[in-house]
Amino acid sequence: MPLIVVNEARASSQPLFVIAIQDAASAATSAMAQATIRLGQLGTFLDLVKGQGISRVALVGALPRPHLADLRLDLGAIRRLPAVLRVMGGGGDDALLRRLINMVEEREGLKVVGIHELAPSLVIKDGALTTRQAVPRDLRDATLGLELIAALSPFDCGQAVVIMDGRPVAMEGAEGTDAMLERVAALRSSGRLRVRGQRGVLVKAPKRGQDMRVDMPVIGPDTILRAAEAGLAGVAVEAGGVLVAGLQETRAAADRGKLFIHGLKATDARPS
Amino acid sequence: MPLIVVNEARASSQPLFVIAIQDAASAATSAMAQATIRLGQLGTFLDLVKGQGISRVALVGALPRPHLADLRLDLGAIRRLPAVLRVMGGGGDDALLRRLINMVEEREGLKVVGIHELAPSLVIKDGALTTRQAVPRDLRDATLGLELIAALSPFDCGQAVVIMDGRPVAMEGAEGTDAMLERVAALRSSGRLRVRGQRGVLVKAPKRGQDMRVDMPVIGPDTILRAAEAGLAGVAVEAGGVLVAGLQETRAAADRGKLFIHGLKATDARPS
Repeated sequence: MPLIVVNEARASSQPLFVIAIQDAASAATSAMAQATIRLGQLGTFLDLVKGQGISRVALVGALPRPHLADLRLDLGAIRRLPAVLRVMGGGGDDALLRRLINMVEEREGLKVVGIHELAPSLVIKDGALTTRQAVPRDLRDATLGLELIAALSPFDCGQAVVIMDGRPVAMEGAEGTDAMLERVAALRSSGRLRVRGQRGVLVKAPKRGQDMRVDMPVIGPDTILRAAEAGLAGVAVEAGGVLVAGLQETRAAADRGKLFIHGLKATDARPS
Repeated sequence: MPLIVVNEARASSQPLFVIAIQDAASAATSAMAQATIRLGQLGTFLDLVKGQGISRVALVGALPRPHLADLRLDLGAIRRLPAVLRVMGGGGDDALLRRLINMVEEREGLKVVGIHELAPSLVIKDGALTTRQAVPRDLRDATLGLELIAALSPFDCGQAVVIMDGRPVAMEGAEGTDAMLERVAALRSSGRLRVRGQRGVLVKAPKRGQDMRVDMPVIGPDTILRAAEAGLAGVAVEAGGVLVAGLQETRAAADRGKLFIHGLKATDARPS
């Protein structure tokens, strides 16, 4: 994802300074980065950013949930320790990142932007993206999925569910979307989920009221491949709320697997 | 479970007539049954029940979700076909069984009772069941879990979730509680869920407004074993809403694994 975002942002000739986070960034991301820091090097990060005259920063990709003991905070982080400790408190990943962003914005005068601002072309809009179209049954499953994700929102957990013929068969927890889809594939091949043909919809959406600068949901060719292996009819996302990691490759994967991808307006779903 | 329920009910000297459902009942259940029928033999079932002068029936254990094509309906079922077809329509397992119960009660004059009425001693009451006690952090996780299950209720899906330090890490879908606990164990052993020591709570509760004659949640020694393998601190259930498959064995398994089992009043949870 970071590579795709950087390429998209460069294509619109925005000046970029890329900082990789050690252990979190892939080799390819690290190779294109101008600098690499550890997660605990908040001081180095702020020095780098301010030294470059940067005023807007974006967080791209997933961060491992850190243990304070593993962080090896640098001097700049230790100087900010009370604020850092407040940030590290309980709650979901989302709450953690939101507090981190608020701290950086309020105390350091930086503006934190989302990927949807850095690379708006990666945001999935409403309507069909693929040759295969969602039929009414699929759209009913998609709508139910959006409602279910909305109901889960206050709990800061799943951004993805699988609905099959009006029945939620899988909800994403800490395992992530890929593992959830593998579970659905296993349930089908073991005969515990007995449906014939391509049936069911993977639904992804941001949590209601989610800070879009934090952990915006993403689909990509891999998602489509796993959805196909789970025997699903397609993938529905909340239009404007989900990113695509490579539109052409993702669409091509869906067309090959005869899956639909559909952007559904949140207002299409009944309020829950 | 059927064996345990039958033994408990016999202990209270209720007269029982046990009918096993082929392919769904275990060998042990079939061996103690006075009759065995296929799932599609609604006619035979009603003839048996009425021939015995039975007025109250209970459904014990899980039924495979049937495909109409596999049912091989008998004459008595075919005569009732319009009603059966209405029952077989869409929706979750719960909705299906509730319609089946309503049909049997309204059209056949039988009263359908729940396991909690047949064997009330199997219902978990409020308070601690084990040597290990839930600490305040565990009770917070338990309360959050009850709230999450309540929020999922309208979607007729999970009756079980795993909460760890205020964070929902797994929600049960079609895979069932055991597979969900195996997932949590795998997430921990792979380091994707980084918590130390026994942490987190399996929470089980009936869906809000659930018909207690249908699919009441159950815990047993196996549940405890898997919760222990997932490194959890304990198991919390909604008091009065969850059955135990063998109180002594389940408590002994928890004591061996140093887990708590705690019955939490639904009113202890904040309304969601």
